[in-house]
Amino acid sequence: MSKQQTGEDALVARLRRLLPPDDVSVIEGIGDDCAAVRVVGAGFLALLKTDCVVEGRHFSPKDAPADVGWKAACRAVSDIAASGGVPRHALVTCVLRRGCEGRWVEGVYRGLARAARRYGFTVVGGELAATEGPNVINVAMNGNVRRREHVTRRGGRPGDVLLVTGALGGSFASGRHLRFVPRLEEARWLVEGHRPHAMMDLSDGLAADVPRLAAASGCGYEIDAASVPRSRGATLEQALSEGEDFELLLAVAPRAVARLQAGWLKKFPRLRLTEIGCLAERGVARGFGSQRGFDHFTR
Amino acid sequence: MSKQQTGEDALVARLRRLLPPDDVSVIEGIGDDCAAVRVVGAGFLALLKTDCVVEGRHFSPKDAPADVGWKAACRAVSDIAASGGVPRHALVTCVLRRGCEGRWVEGVYRGLARAARRYGFTVVGGELAATEGPNVINVAMNGNVRRREHVTRRGGRPGDVLLVTGALGGSFASGRHLRFVPRLEEARWLVEGHRPHAMMDLSDGLAADVPRLAAASGCGYEIDAASVPRSRGATLEQALSEGEDFELLLAVAPRAVARLQAGWLKKFPRLRLTEIGCLAERGVARGFGSQRGFDHFTR
Repeated sequence: MSKQQTGEDALVARLRRLLPPDDVSVIEGIGDDCAAVRVVGAGFLALLKTDCVVEGRHFSPKDAPADVGWKAACRAVSDIAASGGVPRHALVTCVLRRGCEGRWVEGVYRGLARAARRYGFTVVGGELAATEGPNVINVAMNGNVRRREHVTRRGGRPGDVLLVTGALGGSFASGRHLRFVPRLEEARWLVEGHRPHAMMDLSDGLAADVPRLAAASGCGYEIDAASVPRSRGATLEQALSEGEDFELLLAVAPRAVARLQAGWLKKFPRLRLTEIGCLAERGVARGFGSQRGFDHFTR
Repeated sequence: MSKQQTGEDALVARLRRLLPPDDVSVIEGIGDDCAAVRVVGAGFLALLKTDCVVEGRHFSPKDAPADVGWKAACRAVSDIAASGGVPRHALVTCVLRRGCEGRWVEGVYRGLARAARRYGFTVVGGELAATEGPNVINVAMNGNVRRREHVTRRGGRPGDVLLVTGALGGSFASGRHLRFVPRLEEARWLVEGHRPHAMMDLSDGLAADVPRLAAASGCGYEIDAASVPRSRGATLEQALSEGEDFELLLAVAPRAVARLQAGWLKKFPRLRLTEIGCLAERGVARGFGSQRGFDHFTR
C-alpha cells in the first residue's frame, strides 16, 4: 500500500512509533475513526479535560518541541490530578504551520511520550491539520476517579483554610512553565487521606483562580498576600497574576490542617504547602488589591 | 464576585447559557478543572475522538459561525457513528483571533448546541485561547458502543463488497460540508442488523480513504470508478479526491449484500447505498488511476 500512502499517513506512522505501546485498556488505538477503550466499573467516574497550547502565548518558536509536547500533556494531567483522579487516555490535535509537520512535531511527540510513560496514560488518537498561523497543540485527556475521591471547586465552605503547594510566579522567566511537574502524586495523597473540600490547579494566577474557587463554592475569600510563597526572584505581582504555575490550590476544614501539614512534611519534605488565607462569607473579597490573574481576552 | 470575574469567565458563562442542560450522566459539567461523567457498564466500550476545523481550510471567514460549530461537532459525531456507537460528551477548544471572542464564538456555540440536541451529546467542557492566526475549533468527543457492535477499519476480507452511502463530491461548492447530516441513524441500523466487517467515514475522499480501510484490513482493493455515486454537478475527480463528504464506506460479506440492500431501501428510501467495488488480495490497487485523496501536507 505504500504507493497510496499519503504524506499525512506516513507522518502519522512515524509519530506512532515515538509513543510507548498501548496499555491493556486500549481495544483500538491510533489509526481508526475513533479509539476504543475499556471503561472502569462501578464506583468510578470518567474525568474529561481538553486544553491547548498556542505558539506565541504558551510557548515560543525557540522552545524545544519536546518541552512543548510535555507542557501540552502535563497541563491536562494537572487538571485531572486536581480533580482527584489519574490520567488514562489522551487524544492529540496538532494544528501546524507549513514546514512544521516533520521534525518539529516529532519532537512534540517525544515530549508527549515522556509524559505518557511518567504519568501512565496512553495516546490513543490524534489529528493533524495545517494552518497559516501559529502552531496549536490541543490535548484531550480522560482519567478515572473513585467517586468518593472526586474533588471539585465547589465544595469549599466559609472558614476553610486555603493552601497552595510549591512556590508561585516567574514560571515563564525560569522556563518552569515548559518543564513543570504536575502534582499528581501529591493530589492522589491528598484525596486518599485528607479529603480537601475543594481543589483546583493554578493556571491563570492566584488572583484569578482563588475568586473562581470561592465563587464555585458560594463563598468569598480573605488572602494574606504577604504569605503567598514566591519562586526565587518572583515579584508579588508575578506570584499573584502571572499564571502557569500548575500548583494545587485547596480548601481544607480548619480542624484538619494540623494533621494535614504534619503528614505532608513527612511525605513531601521538599515541597512547601503554605496557608495563604481562608474562604469567607459570600461577598467578602480581600487580599488581592488591584491584582488580577491572566485573562486571555483582556490583555 | 462579579467585580473579580474576568472577561474570559463572563464569556464562558454566556456560552454556557447557549447550550442545552447537562444530561443525567454528567456529575460535573463546564466550569471545573475537569468534567466528570458516569461511565457505562459491562458490555460497552468508550469511543474517543478528537477533530478540528481550521479557518481557511475547513471553513471560510464568511461562513455563518453556527454552521462552523455544527460542522466541528458533526465531524466527530460522524466518526463515532462510523465506529458503531453513539456520541455522549464533548469538550470544545476555541482558539480565537482577537476580536472573535464575542459574537462569532457565540454563533459557534449555537451550532454546537443544535448538534448536541439533535445527536444526544452534552458539551461538558471547553477551553478558550487567543491566537494571532486563523480561528481553530477542536471538538473532543466520547461515545458508547456495545462491544459486539463495535466496528473498525480492520475487519475487511478479500472479496468483501465495498459500499458508500449518499453521493460524493462538490461538498465545498454546495456548502454541504458545513451542514451535512452525519450518518448516525444509518450506522446504528447497519451495526445492529447487518454487522459490516469494516466501516469508516469519508473525510479525505474515496481515493485516500479506500486505501486506508484496505490497508487496515490487510487487503487490496478494486474500485469501479464509473459506479461511484456523484453529487449533482460534481466531477469524477471531485467525487474521488475532494473529501469532506462524511458519508459511510463499508465492507460487507458478498452473501450479505442482497439482504442489506433490500432492508436499506425500505428503511432509508431517500439515501442511496451504492456498491463501488470490492476488497482484494493485498497488493491489488485498481480503480483510482492517478487520483489521490486530500492530504493536509502534500497540497
